[in-house]
Order: sequence, then structure tokens, then C-alpha cells
Amino acid sequence: MRENKILKLGIPKGSLQEYTLKVFKAAGFDIEIPQRGYFLKIDDPEIECFLLRPQEIPKYVGKGKLDLGISGDDWILETKAKLIEVCDLKYAKQEIKKVKWVLAVSKDSKIKSVKDLKGKTISTEAVNLVKDYLKRNKVKAKVEFSFGATEVKPPRFADAICDITETGASLKAHNLKVIDTILISSTKLIANKIAMGDKQKKEKIEELSILLGGAVRGVQEVNLMMHVSGGKLKKVLRILPKIKKPTIRKITGQDWYDILFSCKKLEIRELIPKLKRFGCQGIVEFPINKIIK
Amino acid sequence: MRENKILKLGIPKGSLQEYTLKVFKAAGFDIEIPQRGYFLKIDDPEIECFLLRPQEIPKYVGKGKLDLGISGDDWILETKAKLIEVCDLKYAKQEIKKVKWVLAVSKDSKIKSVKDLKGKTISTEAVNLVKDYLKRNKVKAKVEFSFGATEVKPPRFADAICDITETGASLKAHNLKVIDTILISSTKLIANKIAMGDKQKKEKIEELSILLGGAVRGVQEVNLMMHVSGGKLKKVLRILPKIKKPTIRKITGQDWYDILFSCKKLEIRELIPKLKRFGCQGIVEFPINKIIK
Amino acid sequence: MRENKILKLGIPKGSLQEYTLKVFKAAGFDIEIPQRGYFLKIDDPEIECFLLRPQEIPKYVGKGKLDLGISGDDWILETKAKLIEVCDLKYAKQEIKKVKWVLAVSKDSKIKSVKDLKGKTISTEAVNLVKDYLKRNKVKAKVEFSFGATEVKPPRFADAICDITETGASLKAHNLKVIDTILISSTKLIANKIAMGDKQKKEKIEELSILLGGAVRGVQEVNLMMHVSGGKLKKVLRILPKIKKPTIRKITGQDWYDILFSCKKLEIRELIPKLKRFGCQGIVEFPINKIIK
Amino acid sequence: MRENKILKLGIPKGSLQEYTLKVFKAAGFDIEIPQRGYFLKIDDPEIECFLLRPQEIPKYVGKGKLDLGISGDDWILETKAKLIEVCDLKYAKQEIKKVKWVLAVSKDSKIKSVKDLKGKTISTEAVNLVKDYLKRNKVKAKVEFSFGATEVKPPRFADAICDITETGASLKAHNLKVIDTILISSTKLIANKIAMGDKQKKEKIEELSILLGGAVRGVQEVNLMMHVSGGKLKKVLRILPKIKKPTIRKITGQDWYDILFSCKKLEIRELIPKLKRFGCQGIVEFPINKIIK
Amino acid sequence: MRENKILKLGIPKGSLQEYTLKVFKAAGFDIEIPQRGYFLKIDDPEIECFLLRPQEIPKYVGKGKLDLGISGDDWILETKAKLIEVCDLKYAKQEIKKVKWVLAVSKDSKIKSVKDLKGKTISTEAVNLVKDYLKRNKVKAKVEFSFGATEVKPPRFADAICDITETGASLKAHNLKVIDTILISSTKLIANKIAMGDKQKKEKIEELSILLGGAVRGVQEVNLMMHVSGGKLKKVLRILPKIKKPTIRKITGQDWYDILFSCKKLEIRELIPKLKRFGCQGIVEFPINKIIK
Amino acid sequence: MRENKILKLGIPKGSLQEYTLKVFKAAGFDIEIPQRGYFLKIDDPEIECFLLRPQEIPKYVGKGKLDLGISGDDWILETKAKLIEVCDLKYAKQEIKKVKWVLAVSKDSKIKSVKDLKGKTISTEAVNLVKDYLKRNKVKAKVEFSFGATEVKPPRFADAICDITETGASLKAHNLKVIDTILISSTKLIANKIAMGDKQKKEKIEELSILLGGAVRGVQEVNLMMHVSGGKLKKVLRILPKIKKPTIRKITGQDWYDILFSCKKLEIRELIPKLKRFGCQGIVEFPINKIIK
Repeated sequence: MRENKILKLGIPKGSLQEYTLKVFKAAGFDIEIPQRGYFLKIDDPEIECFLLRPQEIPKYVGKGKLDLGISGDDWILETKAKLIEVCDLKYAKQEIKKVKWVLAVSKDSKIKSVKDLKGKTISTEAVNLVKDYLKRNKVKAKVEFSFGATEVKPPRFADAICDITETGASLKAHNLKVIDTILISSTKLIANKIAMGDKQKKEKIEELSILLGGAVRGVQEVNLMMHVSGGKLKKVLRILPKIKKPTIRKITGQDWYDILFSCKKLEIRELIPKLKRFGCQGIVEFPINKIIK
Repeated sequence: MRENKILKLGIPKGSLQEYTLKVFKAAGFDIEIPQRGYFLKIDDPEIECFLLRPQEIPKYVGKGKLDLGISGDDWILETKAKLIEVCDLKYAKQEIKKVKWVLAVSKDSKIKSVKDLKGKTISTEAVNLVKDYLKRNKVKAKVEFSFGATEVKPPRFADAICDITETGASLKAHNLKVIDTILISSTKLIANKIAMGDKQKKEKIEELSILLGGAVRGVQEVNLMMHVSGGKLKKVLRILPKIKKPTIRKITGQDWYDILFSCKKLEIRELIPKLKRFGCQGIVEFPINKIIK
Repeated sequence: MRENKILKLGIPKGSLQEYTLKVFKAAGFDIEIPQRGYFLKIDDPEIECFLLRPQEIPKYVGKGKLDLGISGDDWILETKAKLIEVCDLKYAKQEIKKVKWVLAVSKDSKIKSVKDLKGKTISTEAVNLVKDYLKRNKVKAKVEFSFGATEVKPPRFADAICDITETGASLKAHNLKVIDTILISSTKLIANKIAMGDKQKKEKIEELSILLGGAVRGVQEVNLMMHVSGGKLKKVLRILPKIKKPTIRKITGQDWYDILFSCKKLEIRELIPKLKRFGCQGIVEFPINKIIK
Repeated sequence: MRENKILKLGIPKGSLQEYTLKVFKAAGFDIEIPQRGYFLKIDDPEIECFLLRPQEIPKYVGKGKLDLGISGDDWILETKAKLIEVCDLKYAKQEIKKVKWVLAVSKDSKIKSVKDLKGKTISTEAVNLVKDYLKRNKVKAKVEFSFGATEVKPPRFADAICDITETGASLKAHNLKVIDTILISSTKLIANKIAMGDKQKKEKIEELSILLGGAVRGVQEVNLMMHVSGGKLKKVLRILPKIKKPTIRKITGQDWYDILFSCKKLEIRELIPKLKRFGCQGIVEFPINKIIK
Repeated sequence: MRENKILKLGIPKGSLQEYTLKVFKAAGFDIEIPQRGYFLKIDDPEIECFLLRPQEIPKYVGKGKLDLGISGDDWILETKAKLIEVCDLKYAKQEIKKVKWVLAVSKDSKIKSVKDLKGKTISTEAVNLVKDYLKRNKVKAKVEFSFGATEVKPPRFADAICDITETGASLKAHNLKVIDTILISSTKLIANKIAMGDKQKKEKIEELSILLGGAVRGVQEVNLMMHVSGGKLKKVLRILPKIKKPTIRKITGQDWYDILFSCKKLEIRELIPKLKRFGCQGIVEFPINKIIK
Repeated sequence: MRENKILKLGIPKGSLQEYTLKVFKAAGFDIEIPQRGYFLKIDDPEIECFLLRPQEIPKYVGKGKLDLGISGDDWILETKAKLIEVCDLKYAKQEIKKVKWVLAVSKDSKIKSVKDLKGKTISTEAVNLVKDYLKRNKVKAKVEFSFGATEVKPPRFADAICDITETGASLKAHNLKVIDTILISSTKLIANKIAMGDKQKKEKIEELSILLGGAVRGVQEVNLMMHVSGGKLKKVLRILPKIKKPTIRKITGQDWYDILFSCKKLEIRELIPKLKRFGCQGIVEFPINKIIK
């Protein structure tokens, strides 16, 4: 009985792998990748862990071969799997690059927009994504599955492509230009519907979601601690970012206050010099592991 | 006009790439891979060179988007492309591993042979190869396309797989056993039918085939040179490998002969000690670049 | 005089080296390893630091050539050195692997237990360890010193071996099976008896022990900080791990409390979701460097 | 208008580069180095960032081609540039090695001191540094610019050299001995005089200086937190480093105090064992990112 | 006396180093580079070997501090050293890239040709090269010495630069365009005039030149051996490259001939298929180490 | 029966390993080292191959646990094993470094020669080598086995050491000086006496010795081919190295001769310029794989 309640979790092999393992580690789970093999060791006896292609994880989560998985919006849409998105695992920009699917053609192509694709051949690794996009735009064209190295194909082997890009440098190097963006994809924690209907599994999944979400936020924030005199307290509190609820404590036996609050890393650069100007003293910035609001 | 006669050549990206470039280099062609991009530079103005997935090269050669390409029997069969096999580029065993497609199941599976696959699910990157194999064996089963990492799938995600293996170590590590071999694939030079009907292109392709074939053989053979006295000449000639036609020349002014012949590297270990026992002197073994019989 | 009071410290070269330097760094000591040479630079003028084989450190500590050293139980026992164990430097499991000495024989050997070793030959790098083990078991056998690569020896070059293993993978690869575990070794801070009798040196050694122990614990714990309302305080305190003494402070002018406590990393995963369910807010997890209880 | 107010910042290429980028990252600025090229991307739209030789940065700051730069005292003196030193970016010793310029000669040279250099040839990458040194010592000698690999030159190609050394190992290996130290150089944030006269630029430069200074200090300090009973509080406060202003808070409902203060990493080693002896409990050491006094 | 006759040889450190050592190795000299240090070990007791900057070698050869050296035309011209060029060490194109000095400016600069440089500032590592070029073109401009990273300078720090380029990619990446090529430099063996006037040294230098030249040619050529029947001999000889003098030997007792000749690697590709068509058999291609015509 | 005739061969692990595998490869044997494990795969069914410490191979060959092995003189002497040296596998100097065992002491030690060692302690990995050396010199001293890192020991942990050195750089770096050389060791093929008494095994060993010896010589020699006119033939033959027996063949229909002979690489440097001066033309140097005289 109890054995049925073990969660089957799919970890994406390839470009999302390093990032996914890092988030799990920050959340407190150690996942070991054996030199050979794809059955991962995780230090939680209630989870069974598989390393699988991100293209195939949504399908397996949909069918219930997995209870839980990590994949991108792109493959969730491509596979048209029925599943529940538990949470979004997006980091601050410097941690992981955005996955952007664009439609591109040769620089000197006459194709200027999706409308010009009528009757043309488009090569892509995400055939359904492109078909849905064409349907939305009411254009009929031929979509061919590509085994990779897609950007080399126009104009000789295809009229257009739909592929992932980060900076556009690779497209440029292949003399291609972007004519539309089809999808900006984010990394998601996805669950099977039946698993989410099981009380015990649902609880476990939500616990995981709390810890993963806390770790994702922990990377983006820091704590600030500082001293301010009673006379300046009000003014200082007014310049703190609105949504913060600082912890304020009077220092025993003095008219000084100790203020503690968490803050986005990106705000720090402007906030610290300001706080100093407003008379705060002993400003200390700490790293944090996780933060659960 | 002349411009039409430029040969479009497809070089396989990935596991066959290094080997293919090595054979071309040995044949006398320098192919440069730019850091970014898939249009290769080749130092022959009559050839235009593309780096493409081996899975897609037979299709493009069949359709005439390429005149010539390198790919394996596996993808030639998988794509069912209509084309001409110009020559086989197989090296001696130590140069490149055999590509073997096998049917495998979990060690403790009840599936013992192809017959037991009836109604089961088989995961593979070569869907047509498997479908043809099932048809030959009159078995009906479901064949699913795999995006890779196929050996992790049985028994949870598939009942059987069809995948490439070299030593079987990876299959063993995933607790799988082989129940049949579907194909042993070799690397081929393939050409488009129309290109082979064009006199000028055909001549160029045949020249390439001579040079590539000579380079493949050159890696496997060496030349042996030795001296033998007139009295022992006949006996020595009798122990030489049958098919060899040695060059025999009398040394000016002496009853000694200078013998020169090419020989497979693998025969050398037994031949040299034997030749020494039969009285040969000054045995010298040379490396060779190419040999065209 | 004062010069005699400099502590001579032995750092183990090889498998324990990286770990040892890491613990010292966490404790606040910077040890530099010059590219060539074994006299280490440490940023404490009262310590002189040598990089030596762990096999030799207990001997040197015993004889007083070193006042202090790091080595494993295995070599402490093997060398039978007379010394004082100051503290155990064991990290959490993910930081350093256990060193396990096992007795192993060929898979098809008739030797099933220590009793069957009578009259046989055992190859090992730890001759005394094995001799003591045999004596305890009242078995007479020949113990041979091995220069390494011990696992290759059975059955041709030895009947049994005693060697270090972590996962057993290497033994398995050599077709060996474990028939007994002789020792599970831990890393120790060891001191010379005379040095421990010298008041000044003893004080310095104890200070080192406090700092090293605090650093070892610091790696395994984190601090948790959170807010809880007056009404829920008692219930929350009840679910905290028993031994924790949390710091509880009322937030100035509100019926909210600020709770701070340290906690093992391994408990965090279960504790955080629980705290959230019990109404805690603004839960923040911090890393810590050292913790001295 | 506003466009003129963008700060032009010079980052030193080479030995100071890694260190400089690390300090900026700690201060909250992300600087990206493209694979090719020297125009750096910084995530602050008010700064424009160039990777330049440290030898040339002072000159450019002096002339106003840069508003701000990082370089060493050595090149500031060598170039004799007129500029303002905004702050010293010296880390604790373990973070970056001291840059030491020494005068060296062959081990068996008759030159024993600067006086013996009269009429001799000195090869160096810092010609002015050496000339000024000679002038101070009232010695006339020939100073030759060296393109690098300076230590190979004596005695065949130069009588003496002036070069950077860390441990002296390279000098020793070339059979050289040091006869004098000319300069010990530190890393500085330097600004152009006119830029410092512009109100808007000055403010931006001072904000940068606060953040960089805070990050430099953050690396060298930690926070200590501990509990002490009311009876021991006074004695404990007396042994804390003089300049510290600890935050002292009574624990709600007990005669215990919670003390928090920042402290140099180097003092920790002596302080923690002392605090324990004086009865402090639950001593915890935290890392900090930045500290602004 | 004899000791004076030892040749002092300068090997260029940096971009030419690997190539130079390879040519010497092919010529039969082993030069060892110690991990630390610049006095190279060469296995010829009559040579003393120094690793020096190529910028400095011509000067030392000119002054007689070296008898012999390897450097490029660029630095020979730049240093204006008086010396003798013994031979050109140019390999086939694939072995070493051409060193090309170009004049470049920002893409949007108004400077279109050398004439527009009047009154401008040019930054370069080769000041004299540029000054001579300007004089030839009767243009007056300021030439500044650059410590490297020259391509970052326009337009802020210089109006134009003169720098080395191979593919132009780096210039492009810095938004520069080439407006003229100043020099295409080749690698030379250079000797001191007095050394060349000494009979014993001159002989040694000429021997070196023969061996280095033979090695350079050996890399570019191969030997071809084949059999041809008496009837076809004349026709075959007619298609061989004109300048070749093949060795023709009758095979004992048959109307077949054995032909041997050396041939440029680049000709092989066309020659082998032709020879086969003309009836040659047993065509074998051998590598060669050196060839001295 | 036949099975008993399989040769057991010991390959030395460590510093001789790469060299040994290279010689076997040149001789025509492919030995594969599995990632884990020490039973090597060799492509000869009559040989069984073990990777063992060179310190232990002579002992095992002596005792017949191996029929054949590779080790150095040092360990042959150290182990005092009774065995047969089949051949010396010494390469030209550039292929493998000499193994030199030296006696060293601290630079400022009063020990100047072996005589001063009386009563002192010597640390070494080769205890017997040192004891024999002391006996030959009639000096009584204590010899201690060292686990490695021997050079760190004087003067604190030993009075002298005996260790391997190549360039002396490591000794120097540890402030040691050499006072005597005890042994210069060479790599040997060694066989068990009983194996050499078995006709079948002896034949196999001799075949191996021919192939290994041929490969060792092949690395050190090259072939030279050249043309000389009838008039100059005699004079040229006189300057050829004495022991060479050149193959001389008249070129069909001309008064020119084709001369072919093998020659040590080291002689080439002097021979080629001389041959050119004596009128030889078309001098070509070829690499060779093996040469069996």
C-alpha cells in the first residue's frame, strides 16, 4: 500500500539538467547522477527519480508513468499532455537563460511574416508548436521534423525554421533573420492529475513546491540589517521598498532601533547608498538560502 | 553552366564526424569546421560541403538536395531513400566501432524473442527499421519514437527497445538483455541517381571513391621490404600471403634479391618472425598513406 | 624557549588532503600548498605545517616529531602509535566518504569466512590491522605488504586481500566479494602526549579543537528565522526539534514574535512545510560558518 | 546632455582582471566579458566599461579618456598620471597576492646593492619606476624596456632586472637573487579630476566607492551571534574588540542576552575560544556579503 | 677557441614557438622546454639555445648576442637590424597561418585610405613598420606604441591601428574595417654577419639550413610508387608532373616497370585517379620526413 | 594441455606504463586498459596480460606467477629475483627519461660522501638497493622504507634519502644536494627460467622479443634513398656509416644508381649535408615502423 505512495519524479536530461539539480540541492535534496544509467539516487525514500528527455517528460506525466516532472512550457505544449502545472521555477536572469522559440528565414528571403509561409516548408524540432502557430495565423504550410542542426537548413533544405535562440548570435552566424517569436518558455514543475487527487501524494508535492519555490526566491534576495536612531526611524521606514515588512526591535537601553528586512539583490545597489545618506549605521548584507513568504 | 557541376556533399555531424573527416584528410582533402556554422570549407573548388545529421543525409541525397553524402546503412534503410551506394568506408576494427542495432528487454522480462512482442510497446530512434523488422517477422506491436536515452525506458516506459550498442556494457548497466540483432551498419558513400547519370559528376564521384578507398586501405596495411639470397628466394616466396604480388629486384652485382610487398598489419606479427627464420635479412616495415590495387 | 612552543602539525597528503584543508579553512586557517614542496605555509605563527603521508603521521605524532596531526583510525591502529585523540572530524555524509577496510576474496573462492583463511596469504597495505584482526579471530595466516593495486591480486597472487572500499564497485569489477568488514575508519585530530602535558601547547590544541569542531558542525546546520503571532507561539514552539533553544523576541509594538534557532540541514525539508502550516510567516533560512554549542 | 553623464570605466586586463570582476560582482554589478572583444557589458546603464591594460588605465584616467578606472600603484607611478585616488581595494591577504617589484641580479654577480649599478644596464617593464628609484639613490645607470620574460636576461642580456615577484621561486629558478625591493603595489579605484568636479558624476562615483568598499570589507568580516547570562554580560562586553558596537537585546522573559556584532575573520580564531571560556553559549558565526560602517 | 665556435640560437617565444620547435624536430633536433626557465636544452653540443621574444631576436642577432635566430619579417623590419636572411621557413598553408599586418579604422570612420591619416594617431605594436609605411606614402601622422589589445582602441583611444590579423574576425568583432595591408610576414632563419664570415660557423649554419629546408619540403610532399607494363610506360611518363625525375626500374624477369617519384600532396588528388585510368597498378603513397633536391 | 601454454605477461603500472604500451603497439599488439581493473585485454589469444606495480613484477616472474614481464633494473635488483633478461627495451633518449637513483642530503648538511653516513638514517623506497650500496662501501647505517614524498624528509625526518631524479629540479626545490649516484636503470623484458625451458613458450617469447626489438629500433632509425652518378658512387659509398649494407640498384638505361639504406636518426643530421656535398641528388628520408637486422 504504502509502496504505491512513492512519488515518481522525472528530471530533464540536457540543457535544463544542471539548473534543475541546482534548484533541488538548494531546496535540500541531494540527487546523484551515476556515471552510467539514468535511475538517479535521491536522498528521500519517498521519491523515485528518473533522468529523461524533457521532450518526453510531459507525455509520461500525462499518462501517469510519472507523478511529477520538470519540463518547459515548450514541450508541455508540443506534447499536448493533460497535466497540472504546480509551480514556475524561474530564477533571476543571471541564473538561467530564457528559452525563446523563433521563426527565422534567410536574410535575403522574400518571406517577411507568417503570411508569406503559405505553401512553404518549415523545419523544426517542435512540429506541433509550429502547426498550432500556423493554425492560429490561418496559414497552410508543410512542417518537417528536424533531427537538430536546424539553423543550417535555409534556404537550401527548408524555406524557414522554428528553433530556440538565446542571443540570436547563432542565427546571425548562419545568415538568418527572425521574423516572429512563437513562444517564450519557462521551466515548470508539473504533476499528474490522478496523483494530485491522492491526498498523501498531493501533500508531498506541495511540500516540494514550497521548498523549491523558497530556494528559487532565496537566490534572488538578501537580508539587510542596520541601526537607526529613534529620531530618523520614520523617515527611513518611508524609503524602504513598499512591500517589505521589516522587523524592528529597540536596542536595549538606547534610543536606537535594529531593522531587519529582505530585499531583492537588484535593489541593493540603489538602496544602500540611500540608507547611508539617511543616517543608517552598521548596514550589513547577508546571503540567504531560502525564503518562504 | 559549369557552376551546376559543383558537387554538393553532406558530412555527418556527430558520432561519424571525426572518422569521416579523418578519412577525407587521408584521401587528401582538408575540411575545416568553423566554430559556428555548418557550411564547411573544403580545399576543392568543385565541392560544396554541408555538416548535417546522418539521419537526414539519405533523404537529402535521395531528393537531390545533395549529390553525395556519407551516412550509415541504418539511416539509409530508415529513411527508405532511393539512392546509389558508391563505396563502403569500413576501416580495420581498431579505427571505428561497428554500429549494431539490437532489440533489448529487461533482464527479468518474459519477452524471449521477437514473437513475444505482440501487442507490446517498443521505443526506438529508428521507427521504420523496427517496423520493417516486425513485418518480416509477422509480429504486430506499437513502435514509439524516442528522443534519446532509450535504454532507460524498460520496463517502466516501454516493453522493449531497439538501440545502438557497441560492447553491450551500457545495456548491461541498465539491466537489459539483447534478444535479437536487427542490423549491423556500415558507413557508406552514397550518391544521388541523377548526379550519377551526369558524366562530369560521375567522374568526380568515382575519383573521390578511388581516393577514399585508397586511404581506408592505407590505414590497414604496411609495406615490407627485405633482402633474401638467391638460394632461399623460392622458399620465401612460397610463405608469403597468397594474394600478394611482391616486387622482386636483383641487387646489382650480387646473388641477393630485394623483395617489396604490402601486407595487412594484422599478418605482420606472425610473418616477420617466420621470414627471419627463413633467412630474410634487413627486414624493414614502412607506413603507407594510400594503396590503390 | 618560546620557540619550543611552536606546534608542529602534520597534514595528510592524498585522499584526506582536500577535506582536511577545507575544514581548516572553515575553522579560519589558511594553508597554502606550494607547487613544489611539502612545507606548507599556514597563517598562524605558532604553527609549523608539514604535508606528510597519513600512514606516517601517527608515527611522527607518537614520537614527538609532530605535536599534532590529522590521520584516520586505520593508520592510527596500523602504526600502534601511542598518542591522544583530541577530536573526531566527521562531516555530514555528503562531505566525505566513509573509509571502510574489508576482507575480500575471488567470487568463486572457497574461503567463506575468516576461519577459512588458515594458512592462506593475505595481501594488504595495512599489515598490522590484518594481523590484529587475525589474532582476535585466532586464525594463523600469512600477511603480505602490498604496494597498491591490491585488488588485482586474488586469486593468482594472494588468497585474500584487505583493502579500502567505498561503493564496492572496484571490488566487483575485479571479481571479488567481501567476506568481512575489518574497520570503518574516521578522521581524527591526534596529539602527542608530551605536548598535551605542556600547559601552553595544550591550550593551543584545545582552541584548535573548538574551532575545527565548530566548523564541522557549521557545515551541517543552518539558522532559521521566522515570525509567529502571539496566539500561535506555544503551538509552534511545541513542534520545534526538542533540543533546540530558540531565541524568542517580541517585535516592538506588535503581538508578533521573532523566533531564531539553528537546525540540522536534514531536518529542514520536513520542518519548513510544517511551520508554514502552523502559521509561521517570513521564514528565512541562512547559511552559517561555525556553531559552538 | 544626460548622455554626457555616463561614466567611462576602465577594467584592468590580465593579472588584476579576475579579482576586479569579483569585487564588482560582490558589490552587485554583473560584468560580462564577451569571448572576443574588450567592450564589456555591465548591468548599469549609467556606466560604460572597457577592458584595458593596467599599464594604460592611469594615463587614460589622467587625460579624461576614462572617468574612472582600476589599476595598481605601480602603473599609477610609472605613468606619472595626474588623478584622484578614490579608494583602496585591498582585500584580506588570501584574496589577492601582493605585487612586489624587486631588483635582482645573477646569484654570482658582483652587484650587491643599488650603488653597484653605476654604469650598468637594467632591463624592466617599468622604466620610470626604476629611473625614479635610481635618482633617489643618486645612481646613474641605463634602463632598458623589456618585452617580458625579463628574468631570463641576466647576465648575458642585462646586468640587473626589475620585475614583479610573489614568492621568489621564479627568480630562484633563473639563478637570480633579489638585492632590493622597489615597490609594494596595491589596487586602487582612480578617478579623473574633472569628473570629480561634476556633481552628478561625483555622486555616482561615491556610490560605487561605498558599494565596492562594503564588498571588500564583507569578504574580511563575519557576524558573531551568542547568548550570555545577565551575570556575565559585563565581563564579556569587556573582552570584545574595542571598536565594536555590539547589538544587545534581552531575550523575552529570561535573564539572558542576545549579542550580535561583526568581527574580522582573523580575530575569530582567538575570540571564539575566549568567549566560550567566559561562559557564552550558542555561539554562531555567519558569513556576510557587505558591511558599511 | 673551439668554445667560441658554439652557435648561439634564438627560438621565438609565443605564437611562432610551437611551429618552430616542430620544424626543428622534423629536421632532427630535439629542443626541450623546461617547465620554468628559458634556457632550452638542444641535443647538439655545438648549439646553445635561448627562448626569447620574436620582437627581440633580430636585435640580438644583429648585435651578435645571438649568431642565429628565428623571427618574422615583421620584427626584422621593425627592429631595422642588420643581419643575413639564411632561408625562408614557410610551410604549406595548412601548417601555419600567414601573419598579415593591416591598417584598420572604425567602421564608420571617415578615414578611407592612408592619405586620410594626416595628423591622426595610429596605435600599434610595430611603430617603425608603420612609420616607414607612412614615409613611403608621404603622410605625416603620430604613431603610438601599444601594449597589446590594440583593436579595442579606435575610435576613442586612437584614430587607426596597425595590427596582425588572420581571418579578420577579431577586427570585425571590434567594429573595425581594414583600409590597407602593410605587410605579409613570413618566418625566417636569420644570421649575424660576423658569424657568417666565420668559416666554421657558416658551414654549421648552412647545414642547419639544408636540414630545416628539407623538413619543410618533406611535410608538403609524398612519394608515389607504382607498377606499369612495358607497353604503357611511355604514356604514363608523359602525364607525370614535368619537373619530376622518376626512378624507373625493370622488374626482374617481367615486362613490368617499377616507378618511384616524389610529388606535392596537393597534386596527388588529381594524379592518382589519372594514373589508374592509364593502367598503373599497385599504386602506393608513402609519407616522407625530408626531401633535399 | 594447450591451455597451460598461455603466456602470463606483467605490464608495469605507473611511470613505465605509457612507454610500455607504446612499444607493444609499435610491435603490433593492441593492449586495452579498461577504466576500472587491471586485467588488460590484448589482441593475442596466447597471452594473458596483467597491470602490476613494477616493484612487484620481478618477484612474480622469478616465482613463475608470471612467465614474462617488463620492469626496470632498479626493481630487478631491489627484489633480488632470479630470472632471465630477454632484451633491453631502451629507446632513443628523447622517448623515455633515464631513471637515476641518487643519494641526497640537505644543502647545509655536514654529510659530504657515503662515508659520512655512518650511523645515520636513510629514507628510501628501494631499501635493498641502498643496503647493497652501503655494503659495497663498507658503511653501516639505518635504512628506512619511505611511502613516498621522500624528498621532504631531510633533515627533520631523515639524515639522507635515496630517490629517483631526472633533472634534479625537485631535489633543488627541497633544498637537497646529490652526493652520489647509486644506479642508472633501464627497462627490461624479463622471463621466468622454467618458461624459457619450455620449447613452445620459449619460441613465443623470442618472437615477441624480435617484434619488440624491431619496434624499438624502428623508432630510432629512418631510411634514406638517393641518386648518385656512376662516377661518384665509390666515393659516396665510402662515407656511409661502416656497418650499413646499402641496397644499390642501377637505374634502367642511365649511368645513375639508386641507393637505399637505413640509418640512425642521430646520424642523419651530419650525413645529409655531407651527401649533398658529395653530389648525391634527390635525397629522401622515410619513416619506418620496424627494422629487423
